[in-house]
Amino acid sequence: MLKVGIYGASGYTGQELLRLLIGHPDTDVVTITSRKFKNVAVSEVYPAFASTTDLKFADSSPENIISSCEVVFLALPHGEAMKVAPEFVAAGMKVIDLSADFRLRDVSVYEEWYTRHTSPDLVQKAVYGLPELYRDDLKNARFVANPGCYPTGIILGIAPLLKDGCIDTSSIIADSKSGASGAGRELQFGSLFCEVNEGFRAYKIASHRHTPEIEQELGRIANTAIKISFVPHLIPVSRGILNTIYADLQNDISESEIFGIYEKFYGDAKFVRICKPGSLPNVSSVRGSNNCDIGIVVDGRTGRVIIVSAIDNLVKGASGQAVQNMNLMCGLPEDTGLDHISLFP
Amino acid sequence: MLKVGIYGASGYTGQELLRLLIGHPDTDVVTITSRKFKNVAVSEVYPAFASTTDLKFADSSPENIISSCEVVFLALPHGEAMKVAPEFVAAGMKVIDLSADFRLRDVSVYEEWYTRHTSPDLVQKAVYGLPELYRDDLKNARFVANPGCYPTGIILGIAPLLKDGCIDTSSIIADSKSGASGAGRELQFGSLFCEVNEGFRAYKIASHRHTPEIEQELGRIANTAIKISFVPHLIPVSRGILNTIYADLQNDISESEIFGIYEKFYGDAKFVRICKPGSLPNVSSVRGSNNCDIGIVVDGRTGRVIIVSAIDNLVKGASGQAVQNMNLMCGLPEDTGLDHISLFP
Amino acid sequence: MLKVGIYGASGYTGQELLRLLIGHPDTDVVTITSRKFKNVAVSEVYPAFASTTDLKFADSSPENIISSCEVVFLALPHGEAMKVAPEFVAAGMKVIDLSADFRLRDVSVYEEWYTRHTSPDLVQKAVYGLPELYRDDLKNARFVANPGCYPTGIILGIAPLLKDGCIDTSSIIADSKSGASGAGRELQFGSLFCEVNEGFRAYKIASHRHTPEIEQELGRIANTAIKISFVPHLIPVSRGILNTIYADLQNDISESEIFGIYEKFYGDAKFVRICKPGSLPNVSSVRGSNNCDIGIVVDGRTGRVIIVSAIDNLVKGASGQAVQNMNLMCGLPEDTGLDHISLFP
Amino acid sequence: MLKVGIYGASGYTGQELLRLLIGHPDTDVVTITSRKFKNVAVSEVYPAFASTTDLKFADSSPENIISSCEVVFLALPHGEAMKVAPEFVAAGMKVIDLSADFRLRDVSVYEEWYTRHTSPDLVQKAVYGLPELYRDDLKNARFVANPGCYPTGIILGIAPLLKDGCIDTSSIIADSKSGASGAGRELQFGSLFCEVNEGFRAYKIASHRHTPEIEQELGRIANTAIKISFVPHLIPVSRGILNTIYADLQNDISESEIFGIYEKFYGDAKFVRICKPGSLPNVSSVRGSNNCDIGIVVDGRTGRVIIVSAIDNLVKGASGQAVQNMNLMCGLPEDTGLDHISLFP
Repeated sequence: MLKVGIYGASGYTGQELLRLLIGHPDTDVVTITSRKFKNVAVSEVYPAFASTTDLKFADSSPENIISSCEVVFLALPHGEAMKVAPEFVAAGMKVIDLSADFRLRDVSVYEEWYTRHTSPDLVQKAVYGLPELYRDDLKNARFVANPGCYPTGIILGIAPLLKDGCIDTSSIIADSKSGASGAGRELQFGSLFCEVNEGFRAYKIASHRHTPEIEQELGRIANTAIKISFVPHLIPVSRGILNTIYADLQNDISESEIFGIYEKFYGDAKFVRICKPGSLPNVSSVRGSNNCDIGIVVDGRTGRVIIVSAIDNLVKGASGQAVQNMNLMCGLPEDTGLDHISLFP
Repeated sequence: MLKVGIYGASGYTGQELLRLLIGHPDTDVVTITSRKFKNVAVSEVYPAFASTTDLKFADSSPENIISSCEVVFLALPHGEAMKVAPEFVAAGMKVIDLSADFRLRDVSVYEEWYTRHTSPDLVQKAVYGLPELYRDDLKNARFVANPGCYPTGIILGIAPLLKDGCIDTSSIIADSKSGASGAGRELQFGSLFCEVNEGFRAYKIASHRHTPEIEQELGRIANTAIKISFVPHLIPVSRGILNTIYADLQNDISESEIFGIYEKFYGDAKFVRICKPGSLPNVSSVRGSNNCDIGIVVDGRTGRVIIVSAIDNLVKGASGQAVQNMNLMCGLPEDTGLDHISLFP
Repeated sequence: MLKVGIYGASGYTGQELLRLLIGHPDTDVVTITSRKFKNVAVSEVYPAFASTTDLKFADSSPENIISSCEVVFLALPHGEAMKVAPEFVAAGMKVIDLSADFRLRDVSVYEEWYTRHTSPDLVQKAVYGLPELYRDDLKNARFVANPGCYPTGIILGIAPLLKDGCIDTSSIIADSKSGASGAGRELQFGSLFCEVNEGFRAYKIASHRHTPEIEQELGRIANTAIKISFVPHLIPVSRGILNTIYADLQNDISESEIFGIYEKFYGDAKFVRICKPGSLPNVSSVRGSNNCDIGIVVDGRTGRVIIVSAIDNLVKGASGQAVQNMNLMCGLPEDTGLDHISLFP
Repeated sequence: MLKVGIYGASGYTGQELLRLLIGHPDTDVVTITSRKFKNVAVSEVYPAFASTTDLKFADSSPENIISSCEVVFLALPHGEAMKVAPEFVAAGMKVIDLSADFRLRDVSVYEEWYTRHTSPDLVQKAVYGLPELYRDDLKNARFVANPGCYPTGIILGIAPLLKDGCIDTSSIIADSKSGASGAGRELQFGSLFCEVNEGFRAYKIASHRHTPEIEQELGRIANTAIKISFVPHLIPVSRGILNTIYADLQNDISESEIFGIYEKFYGDAKFVRICKPGSLPNVSSVRGSNNCDIGIVVDGRTGRVIIVSAIDNLVKGASGQAVQNMNLMCGLPEDTGLDHISLFP
């Protein structure tokens, strides 16, 4: 049994990690930390865990975790993860960071969109944790930067077309919609039930921090710098992200050829499900699972391809992908403990 | 008092018309018809009306309505409205048709997207009922084709930019999201609570019937044929449409210049509210009102303008706009009976 | 035009008052106060008001309001209203307090359930603002304690049976369910979208502060001390309270006799709607309106009567009832400005 | 591996059974039947199953299932199950019927509340499938009548008090609230999103068919005939039932004694979780799991005990309990394949 710890586990991402790791056949969650809920039983904060675990949140030091665990997940806000990651990495642990701190390879880009980076040297050591793109690197990785929720679905949605060179790289638009858990469990007016319920709105148009992360990865695939228009929206659901991605086709290519490109690209990927022609994804079909569903339509009237991708932002968009990365890093089958069927309805 | 009738009033659009007309100071609803609910009190089908009206649904013939009303609203499915509209028009009534039957000027386009047209001669007599574009025509109109819900918000959102010639007319993408009442009160699996709740999905990508209606009107404004990519989605809310519209700017134009273009275009429009720079619309801010809120962002990184428009699909997207058209046709102030403040939360 | 002020207007109750008063034909809202949003336009905090009002929140002193208004609504938390009410009352204004501070006639009961009372002398001057019970008193009142949301629906639901003496007064159970706006716009974990959505729970079982208010009024009607079991629950909707009330029938009385009792009791009440036998209320049928819908069922198998009442907690349960009281206090028809038809769906 | 079949699997209960059985380590789902979806892949009807199973719905005869399976689940409407159950039972299969057809021991009571019974002889052979009450019987059972969703939560909630004789058996009131999946996937107006969303209502007050089932089981525990008042309500959530149960305490008994009674009664029950004093259940804490959470409060002011129980209606209220029964019938540990942690948020 792998001994694992979760550092900063009081938010929705942390408790989702705990749900997945308790159900994982090869892991033993030794410590979960939280200053806010220090010494409080997990089941008091999250009653869903009653009768399942006796774990309490601890205000543990990194040393505690280093001495008791082989793997640590950092579920901290950006800016906080970079403060503790170096110590865990230096101790030789396997580290999976769910924050944004080590996702951007160019420190100056990070500092432009986020804040000053206090561990710039460590940035180059991190492997970007999107297994469908970097599986082999992840098998040998000791330090993984787990992708953001929006980037995961958008990159998986458009990667095959970029790889194949069949779209105009300057034409990409990602219109994304996320459930409310994407904002975390912070107390803010915009997250109150009465403000979200029966509402729908865009936010941070063309200025969301996930933009450079998406552009970095799309650029690596296309081997050229890429800029996209990225517009996130807030859906009144708890979980789920749906991305509708638009791009101009370079040349005459049929819908069935495009399906072929996707099937080839994702041939061995267990969590990417290409919807049959005529079918489209729904966030309710991936809720609670680690799947990314992708639908493809060619708009022949305008010469565009329209891709729709759906994930559960807390699973494939965060904690499930972190477990998938852990599996790869630890030599386990990639889907171990991740075979949940979406809860519907 | 204007004597009005609603022909085919059993759906959500019909009852919303009734709500607005009962609250209207200058109208008297004389008849509402429904075969399905013949002789049933409105308040039995829609308990919200209890103590407000004693009206019963009647299975009235057009002649009944012609003899008792000055204005008739047709709230029938497409294909049905074209069967009765000629009789009402021939009788000299003021007719407002909420179906799609008379919105498309080119009958062959109608027949391509809908069904065979049985009253093609009448098509040219209909005025397209978008007051912000055709106010003067509507003041003299006797037969109005009330716009579709998606077209209303999309056309209002992008019209000023097309008028001004500042965008590439081949670059328009409308990513739209509608609440569930847009599908009407028909019994279908996709409209069940458990299928919609906690879900979010796209549908009819690049193939929705509102596409040619949007393109017709955008083309008239731009004075050139226009094709757009239009993708509707289903939001788990009862009311509201939010459109996110993308277009490439033709030349260097600042965000504040664009705000100026919108303010000039909508100077005298009572129901269009331009959000201040930095603010964005939310469907919850227009719910129950006849307003269309518009937000504007220039994405300088990609040279695109991104417009967000929000309406209540049952009010500005259907019944409220129909009343606005009636006001114009009957010489009343345009906003009579339409001063509802959105119900929030 | 009546000049009115709203003191402490930043919450959901305050903005709902504003919605109703702007639509009221005989009132002019002169001032609305808020420390938190001092000098901010109402439409920035609540975008629904854009284009409708230019009012800004002001940090006004009571003197300001006294010099400019005839009527003041206090929309403050309990404990705060009692600090300013005396000054407004002493100045001869008409004062409607939406807090709990002056609802309980017995100061010791207030202090047991709430906090120390700093204006005990004023308590006896307040009229309990439930027009269906105290209409004549309210016509002459200058200081009104507006009822709580739960008490309004429960008292209206059970009052006729108590008046008539046909139930065992020791057997009353009120199982109540409220939408999330009942908790106000405070930042607390339990009010976050992700905590409320797809959830349902009871809270403060047999210990909610509205209990003594309900018991006081039921006791006055029955002319005997009454204790009830009151259990509130949280529904994942924005607005609405539904109360299911159980009582043992004293003697053999038929359902139709009970309907007769209700119709007689509420004969002249414009906002109470008795559902026809076999029909039951739904919070969605009163949303946005000042109505209280009441359904009645006799459970012959157990000798109980079961009453269901539904209101919009922000309207009949707070701001609408406050306007109804203002109408009575000012000699206006009771339903002036309160003829909204529920927004459905 | 146990070979199992699901007969009549197209509804929400059937697909939930499939979710649980695919995840069960000791079962192999051989056949699932549906006339409506004959030859359609499960993943086309329920996309959540894509990549998980290749099963297609079949229009199989009972003989097919008898020859290929050891266990069959009947997920048919009442009235239909009684037609096929005899053949399966006669063939010696283990049969778990999720309908109401064999729950009521007194055929005349069944016929009063449901319809004519065509297999009255088989009624006495069925074991009522509530493992927390009949575990030993179920270990030897070949034919199980799986309980209704409301009865499960209500019986589990009140059983310990009845067993212990500490409440007045004539005083029981069950005020229950269910999510929309309880109505199944039938096309009816009342199940449309727009009718359920933002609504809350009671239905079938004191006349719901689950009443005699609840009374039968409560009477067996108390060893006396019991009548209750049972009022179901519809919550706008997909899953979950919360029951608030009221009863008069017979004599002076403290809250802590009552907690003792519950802990003793449910000592060995893996799926019943007694909430700590001061804590109360929430349907969101059991969603997707087989747990029944129970909260207990004594209302000393009125001499009542108030019990709140929460289950997922599709799991412990239907399919999960069916699997729990299968485990017992087949000699497997009771919780095999049922260790899901609730999906929250």
